[in-house]
Amino acid sequence: MNLTPSLDAHKQVLLRALDPRDSKTLEARLPEIRSADLAEILERLIEDEDRLDSAVALLACLPVGRQASVFGHLPFEAQDAMASRIEDAWLSRILDKMGSDERADLFKVLGDDRKEALLRRMARREREALKRLASYEEGTAGALMTADYVAIPMGLTVSRAMMRVRQTAPDAETVYQLYVVDEHGRLAGTMSLRQLMVARPQAIIDELMIHDVISIGVDAEQEEVARVVARYDLLALPVTDTDERLVGIVTHDDAMDVVESEATEDIHKGMSIGQLEGGVSRVPLWSLYRKRVIWLVLLVFGNLFSGAGIAHFEDTIAAQVTLVFFLPLLIGSGGNAGAQAATLMVRGMATGDVGIKDWSKLLGRELLVAGSLGLTMALAVAPIGVIRGGEAVALVVAISMICIVLFGSLLGMCLPFVLDRLGWDPATASAPLVTTLIDASGVVIYFSIATLVLMGT
Amino acid sequence: MNLTPSLDAHKQVLLRALDPRDSKTLEARLPEIRSADLAEILERLIEDEDRLDSAVALLACLPVGRQASVFGHLPFEAQDAMASRIEDAWLSRILDKMGSDERADLFKVLGDDRKEALLRRMARREREALKRLASYEEGTAGALMTADYVAIPMGLTVSRAMMRVRQTAPDAETVYQLYVVDEHGRLAGTMSLRQLMVARPQAIIDELMIHDVISIGVDAEQEEVARVVARYDLLALPVTDTDERLVGIVTHDDAMDVVESEATEDIHKGMSIGQLEGGVSRVPLWSLYRKRVIWLVLLVFGNLFSGAGIAHFEDTIAAQVTLVFFLPLLIGSGGNAGAQAATLMVRGMATGDVGIKDWSKLLGRELLVAGSLGLTMALAVAPIGVIRGGEAVALVVAISMICIVLFGSLLGMCLPFVLDRLGWDPATASAPLVTTLIDASGVVIYFSIATLVLMGT
Repeated sequence: MNLTPSLDAHKQVLLRALDPRDSKTLEARLPEIRSADLAEILERLIEDEDRLDSAVALLACLPVGRQASVFGHLPFEAQDAMASRIEDAWLSRILDKMGSDERADLFKVLGDDRKEALLRRMARREREALKRLASYEEGTAGALMTADYVAIPMGLTVSRAMMRVRQTAPDAETVYQLYVVDEHGRLAGTMSLRQLMVARPQAIIDELMIHDVISIGVDAEQEEVARVVARYDLLALPVTDTDERLVGIVTHDDAMDVVESEATEDIHKGMSIGQLEGGVSRVPLWSLYRKRVIWLVLLVFGNLFSGAGIAHFEDTIAAQVTLVFFLPLLIGSGGNAGAQAATLMVRGMATGDVGIKDWSKLLGRELLVAGSLGLTMALAVAPIGVIRGGEAVALVVAISMICIVLFGSLLGMCLPFVLDRLGWDPATASAPLVTTLIDASGVVIYFSIATLVLMGT
Repeated sequence: MNLTPSLDAHKQVLLRALDPRDSKTLEARLPEIRSADLAEILERLIEDEDRLDSAVALLACLPVGRQASVFGHLPFEAQDAMASRIEDAWLSRILDKMGSDERADLFKVLGDDRKEALLRRMARREREALKRLASYEEGTAGALMTADYVAIPMGLTVSRAMMRVRQTAPDAETVYQLYVVDEHGRLAGTMSLRQLMVARPQAIIDELMIHDVISIGVDAEQEEVARVVARYDLLALPVTDTDERLVGIVTHDDAMDVVESEATEDIHKGMSIGQLEGGVSRVPLWSLYRKRVIWLVLLVFGNLFSGAGIAHFEDTIAAQVTLVFFLPLLIGSGGNAGAQAATLMVRGMATGDVGIKDWSKLLGRELLVAGSLGLTMALAVAPIGVIRGGEAVALVVAISMICIVLFGSLLGMCLPFVLDRLGWDPATASAPLVTTLIDASGVVIYFSIATLVLMGT
């Protein structure tokens, strides 16, 4: 992450104050720095400058509530590194002050021995809640949610509900949306604090609440969670288990982080890069290599088909070496148009703008657009064909351009739908895969047309 | 957008109830459908089925408050189409019930005559507020913000402030974060409703509020707005003018929409597709053509450099036609590796994970990773070289693979930084541009090595 100039200045002042310990400066400076920024300073200290000790010493200067907040903002690797230098009693105080979702996330980072030691220090109820939250699979609503919400039993009056809100306020992630549950813990309704504030104190909440609550199952994928939060402009989305019982909420800020990280994942997938755990500037080199090499090598073998196509037409090429001049241009153009078409579909499917049933309508549209694109590009390339090889070559190149762009675009457009149908991620239709497929087909299309026109006469 | 089965069912029932008018069914069904969903039904009616009249008739069945809410969820084209069938008096009632940001957005869609007619129906204060909000440039904090926030003058007691919140509650976008302003309207502090609720009623808010408020200038770009909201987990971000006066807030839901649409824009840019106004399934064909064709044609000319490279080495090719077999494979692999490197940088810069000063560190990392990638791919391709053309050809192909992958990756990695330095958008370093550049360089690298090894002996 990139330190803004002011953060860098903060960092320098803090480090100087740390050794020899200048408590006055530390006490004056630390409260001024927001937790997200302080977390970034610690992260830099650990990962760029290898100063884990300074990072732990800085953390120790904070009140424990802020320690928890800063810890929650750290990436997993930094959490892991710092936790290894923090003794059990201290770490369990930090855990105690963290939100239940961040606590579960930190817990997943720790080794089994450490987990056991920390669990022993917790009350039974907390221990079980933590174990449950930490058990949900990464990438689901369960792993994203927090158990710190305000639940109100049915039948309460507005004034009693308000009292409940005040009591829960210090611990809940949000007190602005209340969830009403029946005697079995099932989600029965919801009410905003705003509605509660303007309601008659003696009114019963059952009569005021919205019964038709938007909620999501605990196993739902996190993309789906984010999509629902965004679509209905929610402050928080309640999460229910298979028995319709309320088990947590996903807050707007966590949903927003999902949108951001899912977009990054999709962008990387679009270039056949596997999912990175962390930013590109910090992920280990070995992991970066692995995430990139798999498809690159697979595509080397894919590209052999282009080679085989060329080998098949070696006579035509030997007779007209000029044809090779246009080869990169033609297959490159087809690949570009095809990658565009694939990307438009994959992103459309990810945002919910395009569904599988729009397929035929989109095919018709792509046919028109790609036809026009091919024609335009054929017109652009034809004069060069005349100059380099005469009219016959120009004709071959122009016709090939139209065919390759049209074929490439349709292939790029259809592939995500086909993959989706086969139960694969449509994003597997990455630009490198699409261009490799089009390269091979383009070779065959181009030299077939050339053989027909030039060698046939 | 894709209608879920239940939405499609809703649509059918509503249409049947509309003609002949079955008010009972309409009254029973309409309140069950959420505004975002109803907007999608109207959108489909207008754009897919050309039933603008039915859409307007459905809108007319709603109470005016819900009309405003549904209108706010419609895309601009649909708003424009519907507004053209709604007379001034009705439209001004709808405008009156909309949030100030959505009102300004709708206003921008309308023609000048229409604007004048509607402005005349407004109170002077409202008219000026609307004109001001509509005047901010698209894509800035000003265009994104709403003027419906809760501002509290300094010096108020907690109980007076609470009263102010209750009064503003029906109109404000959020009442959960309050902004304290001084006598000149400058932002002096902030306080959450949660803090206010647990505070002593006689306390003065000046003593309780947070003085160091995170805010943003009215001209800030919307990406920056979204980044700040996400980083600090804000419910709303206050927006100030050049005199530090509070002029609006951007709420979390609007910031989330920005993250989503900016990601789509970046993904499209990554394939050299210009910014689309609307989803791929609905944008006009002509516009889709234009947004795709510009770079495709530019890159046709870029690809001529590959052709020129090939022409330069025609003697080598004629002597060893087998070399052409490996051409698509080598330049394709270089292009894929380079596009990966460029994409990693562009996305890293967009999320703030990578900054210009990380350049040298990242160059070193890329050198190591790309070197290993090139070596792996060379090992994969060498046996094929032996089979197709003997050991000398295998050597040429393997060395070329390493050089092209290394060169391509470094080019892809550096290009976004160079563009950024020149004041261009780093995302201009799209996969098609990078692969085209690498194609041309790859041709030269490959045939130079081939000439040296095969013809030199």
